[in-house]
Amino acid sequence: SANIVLISRAFRHQFIIPDFQGFTKHIEDFYWKCKSNTEGKVASYIPQLARMNPDCWGVSVCTIDGQRFSIGDVNIPFTLQSCSKPLTYAIALDQLGADCVHQYVGQEPSGRMFNELILDYNKKPHNPMINAGAIIVCSLLKTLVKPEMTLAEKFDFTMSYFKKLAGGEYLGFNNAVFLSEREAADRNYALGFYMREHKCYPEKANLRECMDFYFQCCAMEGTCDCMAVMAATLANGGICPTTDEKVLKPDSVRDVLSLMHSCGMYDYSGQFAFKVGLPAKSGVCGGMLVVIPNVMGICTWSPPLDSLGNSCRGVQFCEELVREFNFHRYDNLKHAANKKDP
Amino acid sequence: SANIVLISRAFRHQFIIPDFQGFTKHIEDFYWKCKSNTEGKVASYIPQLARMNPDCWGVSVCTIDGQRFSIGDVNIPFTLQSCSKPLTYAIALDQLGADCVHQYVGQEPSGRMFNELILDYNKKPHNPMINAGAIIVCSLLKTLVKPEMTLAEKFDFTMSYFKKLAGGEYLGFNNAVFLSEREAADRNYALGFYMREHKCYPEKANLRECMDFYFQCCAMEGTCDCMAVMAATLANGGICPTTDEKVLKPDSVRDVLSLMHSCGMYDYSGQFAFKVGLPAKSGVCGGMLVVIPNVMGICTWSPPLDSLGNSCRGVQFCEELVREFNFHRYDNLKHAANKKDP
Amino acid sequence: SANIVLISRAFRHQFIIPDFQGFTKHIEDFYWKCKSNTEGKVASYIPQLARMNPDCWGVSVCTIDGQRFSIGDVNIPFTLQSCSKPLTYAIALDQLGADCVHQYVGQEPSGRMFNELILDYNKKPHNPMINAGAIIVCSLLKTLVKPEMTLAEKFDFTMSYFKKLAGGEYLGFNNAVFLSEREAADRNYALGFYMREHKCYPEKANLRECMDFYFQCCAMEGTCDCMAVMAATLANGGICPTTDEKVLKPDSVRDVLSLMHSCGMYDYSGQFAFKVGLPAKSGVCGGMLVVIPNVMGICTWSPPLDSLGNSCRGVQFCEELVREFNFHRYDNLKHAANKKDP
Amino acid sequence: SANIVLISRAFRHQFIIPDFQGFTKHIEDFYWKCKSNTEGKVASYIPQLARMNPDCWGVSVCTIDGQRFSIGDVNIPFTLQSCSKPLTYAIALDQLGADCVHQYVGQEPSGRMFNELILDYNKKPHNPMINAGAIIVCSLLKTLVKPEMTLAEKFDFTMSYFKKLAGGEYLGFNNAVFLSEREAADRNYALGFYMREHKCYPEKANLRECMDFYFQCCAMEGTCDCMAVMAATLANGGICPTTDEKVLKPDSVRDVLSLMHSCGMYDYSGQFAFKVGLPAKSGVCGGMLVVIPNVMGICTWSPPLDSLGNSCRGVQFCEELVREFNFHRYDNLKHAANKKDP
Repeated sequence: SANIVLISRAFRHQFIIPDFQGFTKHIEDFYWKCKSNTEGKVASYIPQLARMNPDCWGVSVCTIDGQRFSIGDVNIPFTLQSCSKPLTYAIALDQLGADCVHQYVGQEPSGRMFNELILDYNKKPHNPMINAGAIIVCSLLKTLVKPEMTLAEKFDFTMSYFKKLAGGEYLGFNNAVFLSEREAADRNYALGFYMREHKCYPEKANLRECMDFYFQCCAMEGTCDCMAVMAATLANGGICPTTDEKVLKPDSVRDVLSLMHSCGMYDYSGQFAFKVGLPAKSGVCGGMLVVIPNVMGICTWSPPLDSLGNSCRGVQFCEELVREFNFHRYDNLKHAANKKDP
Repeated sequence: SANIVLISRAFRHQFIIPDFQGFTKHIEDFYWKCKSNTEGKVASYIPQLARMNPDCWGVSVCTIDGQRFSIGDVNIPFTLQSCSKPLTYAIALDQLGADCVHQYVGQEPSGRMFNELILDYNKKPHNPMINAGAIIVCSLLKTLVKPEMTLAEKFDFTMSYFKKLAGGEYLGFNNAVFLSEREAADRNYALGFYMREHKCYPEKANLRECMDFYFQCCAMEGTCDCMAVMAATLANGGICPTTDEKVLKPDSVRDVLSLMHSCGMYDYSGQFAFKVGLPAKSGVCGGMLVVIPNVMGICTWSPPLDSLGNSCRGVQFCEELVREFNFHRYDNLKHAANKKDP
Repeated sequence: SANIVLISRAFRHQFIIPDFQGFTKHIEDFYWKCKSNTEGKVASYIPQLARMNPDCWGVSVCTIDGQRFSIGDVNIPFTLQSCSKPLTYAIALDQLGADCVHQYVGQEPSGRMFNELILDYNKKPHNPMINAGAIIVCSLLKTLVKPEMTLAEKFDFTMSYFKKLAGGEYLGFNNAVFLSEREAADRNYALGFYMREHKCYPEKANLRECMDFYFQCCAMEGTCDCMAVMAATLANGGICPTTDEKVLKPDSVRDVLSLMHSCGMYDYSGQFAFKVGLPAKSGVCGGMLVVIPNVMGICTWSPPLDSLGNSCRGVQFCEELVREFNFHRYDNLKHAANKKDP
Repeated sequence: SANIVLISRAFRHQFIIPDFQGFTKHIEDFYWKCKSNTEGKVASYIPQLARMNPDCWGVSVCTIDGQRFSIGDVNIPFTLQSCSKPLTYAIALDQLGADCVHQYVGQEPSGRMFNELILDYNKKPHNPMINAGAIIVCSLLKTLVKPEMTLAEKFDFTMSYFKKLAGGEYLGFNNAVFLSEREAADRNYALGFYMREHKCYPEKANLRECMDFYFQCCAMEGTCDCMAVMAATLANGGICPTTDEKVLKPDSVRDVLSLMHSCGMYDYSGQFAFKVGLPAKSGVCGGMLVVIPNVMGICTWSPPLDSLGNSCRGVQFCEELVREFNFHRYDNLKHAANKKDP
C-alpha cells in the first residue's frame, strides 16, 4: 500500500523535493567526503561494541512523501543505544500525555555530562535524552502504560511501536549486548538508586525491572534504512511516510523534536543546535537520527565517536548538509537567499 | 520612505498576515487576559528598578512587512538590561564574524543560574545571553571593533546600531540606572575578575572599561514600540521592516536567533523552548523581545518577574500566543492542523 | 583478671584521675544539665530507629586504668550505626596496615555531606568515617583479610574483634535493623555502584556481599557501658583497660584517632575539632564515642539528632566537659592554667 | 633580658629538651637528607617569586624555653604570603574574641582548593587559612579593631604585633611583591567581590582597602630565624620564649593551632594531619610554620612547591621529624613506646 501512496503522489507531482535525483547527488558527495574522515574511536566499554568495524559508514534518507535513497552500509544492523531515547519518550508522550510525563522528567539541557549523577532543582532528571531521564521514561512505560503487562509483553508492545515508526522494516534485538550492558552498568545503577532515593519513579515501579527494560530498549537493533523511516515519521508529524499509518500524535512529535533539538547530541547539543539547527539524536553505537521537519528523515551510522560521544562522520555529514542546503532552523530567513532549497 | 515601502506592499496585497485586524483582536484578548495576572515581583536590587510600577503592561507587534499594533504602556521608556545582550552579540557577529566571536564565548546553555561563577570546559563563558558571556561580547566590541574609538565614541557607535535596528525610533540612556548598576555589581565584578584570571578577554582589554561599557549597554532605554521593531528586524533576516535598511547580515541573525532560542530566558530557557518554541530574550526590567522568524517581532513589558527572572505577564502572553497560533518551532508540522495560521 | 589488674593499680595509687569521685560529680552535673535539652529529632528513615525513645540518655566513662562510672540509660542496647566506622577501620588497619588500607580510601575531610556522591581527586572516597569510605573498608575486610572466610565467618570474626575492644561486654545484633537498613539504602547502593564504576574496590570484591557486610556492622548492638570500654581501649593505645589484652597496635590507634578527630562528626567535624578538640564518632542511633587519649573513653547515647546528624545531648555534653576540664587538644598549653586538670 | 631568662633556666636545668645537642644532631641529619630532594617548582605567578633560588633551604628551631638551632639559609628574608594567615587570625582573635571573628568566618576544612570561589552553607568562607577567610580576617582587623586608624597606621599596628610574636627580630616589607601580587590578583578580587555580594564583610568595610591590607600582610618579609620564634610563641601558649612577653591569650593560640592543624596545608591538610599530626601553615613562598605545642616552634624555608602548593622539602622534613620523634598528636599514646622522646 505504501507503493500506491508513493505512486499516486508521483503522478500528482507533489514531492517535497522536486528534483530528488539532483538532491541525492549531493548526498553522495557528502557521503564520500565523510568516508575519508578517520577520526574518533569506537566505543569500547563492552566487547560487542568494541568489535564494531570503524570503517562502517552508511547514510539513509527518507522524505515525508516516501522517496528514499541510501548509500554505504545501510543494511547492517546495529544496536539503537541512545537513539532509542527519543523513541521511548515519544511512546510515553503518546500514551500518557506530556503533562503526565513531565511530572517525572524535565525539559532543560543539563549543561553536564550525559551520565552525571545530578538532578535538576525539582529533583527530577533534566530531560529524557540523558540516561537518568530515559530510565525514568522507561519506568513510566513499564509502570503506567498497561501496567498489567509482564516485562516480556511490555517489550513486545514497545518493539511493535518502534516497528510501526519504521514502517514495518527490520528491527531486531541483540541479547549479548543487553547482557553486557547490564553487566557494565555501574553508573546507570548508581543513577537508578540515586533517583529512587529522591522518589523520582512512579509508585509501584520495580527498579530492577525498569533498568532491565531500559537496557533492552538500548539493545534493540535497526539498520540505517529502517531508522531513516523512523526519522521520516517524526519529520512527517507522526504519520509513517511509507505506510501512511498514524503512529504518533503531532503534539507528541512536537515535544520529541523540541528536546532532540536542544538535548540530543550529549554535551555538543548546544553547538549542534547552533551550527546545524536540526533535531537529532546520536548513540554510542555510532548511529544518528536526524529530522528535517516537514521534509525528511535521515539516519547515519559510523561507529567511531568523538570525545563527546557523537559519531564523527555523522556530525560532519550534518554540517556538510546545512552548509549546502537551507535546512538550519534559522537559515531560511527572508533575505538569506545564499543557500539552496533542494 | 518606510511609508512608501508599506503602501506599495499594501497595494500588492502581499502582507505576511493577511487578516491583520483579525489577528490584533487576538492580541488584545491575550493582553487583557495577562493584565489580570498580578504574580511576580519587581526587581529591587537598585532603587531605580524597584520604583517601576508593577501595573505597567504593554505589548507591541511589528510584522516583517511593517504592519504594527500596540496596546497598553508601549511608550514608557524602560532600560534594556539583558534585552541588550542579543543586540550587542548581533553587532559583534556582524562586525567580527562568528568564528572570531566564538573563540571567546560558547554556544551552550549553561544549565545553571545566569550569573553563576563558572566557565565551560574550554574556560569560556557558556553563551552570550548570560552575564559572563555578554561582558565578553562587550569586551570584543570595545577592543576588537574599531579599537581606536574612545569609550564615548564606542557607546555612540553601539547606540546608533541599536537605533538602526529600531528603525530610528526612540532610544535613550538612563544614567542613574547605569551608576546604580555599576555600584551594585559585585557579582559582575567577581565574574569579570574570574574571567580575567582565566584569560577570557581579548588582548589589551581594559577590564574596568569593558565593565562600564557593559553596564552602559544595559542602561540604554527603549519603549515597547521601538523594541518591537528591533525584534521585527531580527524576524526579517536583518533588514529593518520600517526602513528597509539592511542592518545585519542574515548569518548574524541566524546565530542570534539560535542562541535566543536555547538560552534567552535564563533558567527557564529549556522549558520556554519546549512550550513556546520561539527565540526570545527577557530582562530584569520586565521587557521581553520575541521573534517569530519570517513573520513578526514582538516586545512585551511588565516589571513583575517570576522567581527565575522572567516577566510573568510576558511569559504568559507567549504561552497564550502559541496556544492559539501555529508559531511554535515544531508546531507547524504536516498533519498538525489543529491550530490557526494567522 | 580485670579486677586483679584494677586492684593492683589501686594499691599502687597510680590512677590517671586521682580524685575519681570528684570527677564523677562533674559528670553527673553535666548529665543532668544535658538531660533537660529536648532539641533534635530521632532518625526516622527506618521504623526501628524511629521508635527509639527520645528521652533515653546515658553516659558511661571508662579510664585507661579501668575506673568506671555510668549514669542514665547505659544498659539499653542500641545499634552502632556509624559508630562502627572507626572500629572496622581500626581492624582493617591492624590486619592490613595503613599503606594497604589507604590505597583505597583517603584521609581528608570531604567538606561535604556524609553521603555525598563524590570521590576525591584520586577517585577514592575521602575518608573511612563517611559512608563511601566505610563501605570500602568493609570490602577490604571482606576481600583481603582471610578471604577464605564466608560472609558468616567474617561477621563472627569482626564481632569477636569488637568484643575484645569492649573487654568482652555485651554486644548483639539487630536483624530487623539490618533488614530495614538494607531496604532503605538507595543512596548507599548508588554510592556502591558509583564506586564500582570508578574501580574503588579491591579485585574480586562482590558488591552485594560488601554492602551486606557493611549494613551488618551498622546493625550490631552495644550499650553505653560496653562502648565506653571500646573508647577506653582506643584511649589506651589499643590495650583494653579492663582485660589488659592488646587488641590493636598503637599505630592503628593513632590513625583511627587522627581521623576521628578530623572527620568523625559529619559536617560538624571541623567545628567540633575547633570547640571540643577530641577524637569522637557519632552515629544516627544517637550514640557517640569520645576518646581522651591517655586518659579515658566515654560513650554517650541519646537518640534526638541535630540537623547535621549528631546527638544533641552528646555534643552538649562534650562542650560542657571541655569547658570545665583541660581536655581540648590545644587547651593544655603552657600558661593556659584557667581550666581544671581532673 | 631574654638572655637572663634563658640563663636562669639553664641554671635550673629545666629545659623542655634536656639533651638539646643530641636533638639538633637529628635536625641536621634531616636537613641534609631533605637538601638532596630536588622535586617541586618555584611559584611563578609573579616575577619576584619566580626569581627565588630553588636551592635555598633553611631550618630554624626555637624551643619554648628559648633554646635555638638553625641551619642553612636561615637569614635570607622571604615574604610571608600565606604564613601570615594564622598570624592575622591570631591578632583578630586576640583583639575581637573568637565569637566575633567566627560570626564572619567558619572553622571547617573546605574540602576544596585554597582559592575556590565558594562559601560554606552559612555563606561564610570556610576558615581563616584559605584566601577568602584571610581576606575577611583582614577586613575585621581593618574595620573593627581600632577603626579610627588609617591604612598606614593599621599596617604598622599589625607589623608591630608580628614583631612581638617574633621577639623583636627582623621583619621587613617587600613593596615589589605587594605591587605584583595586587596586579596578579584576579582570583582574589573575584573572591572579594563575590563575598561582598554575599554580605560577608563587616559593615563599613572598604573592599579595596581590605584587599590592599591583605596583600600587604602577605608581602611582609621574615627569615627562618624570626619565624621560628613566632612558631615558638604559639607553641608556648602566646608568650614569646625569647622575651617572655605575653603577646597572645592562650585561648587565641588554642584556636589558631586548631585551625592550623585541620586547614593549614591547603588540600594536603587532611593527609598532613594524618601523617604528621602537627599544626602547621605553609605559604607559596616556600616557607612553613610548624608548631609542637608545649615544646617548640620550627620554621622551614625552601621555594620549590609540590602540586598542592606546599614546600617539598618542608613537608619531607616534618615527615622525617615525626618518624623519629614522638611528636604526632596521637603518637604519644600509652604503650606506643617505639619512638624517641627528645
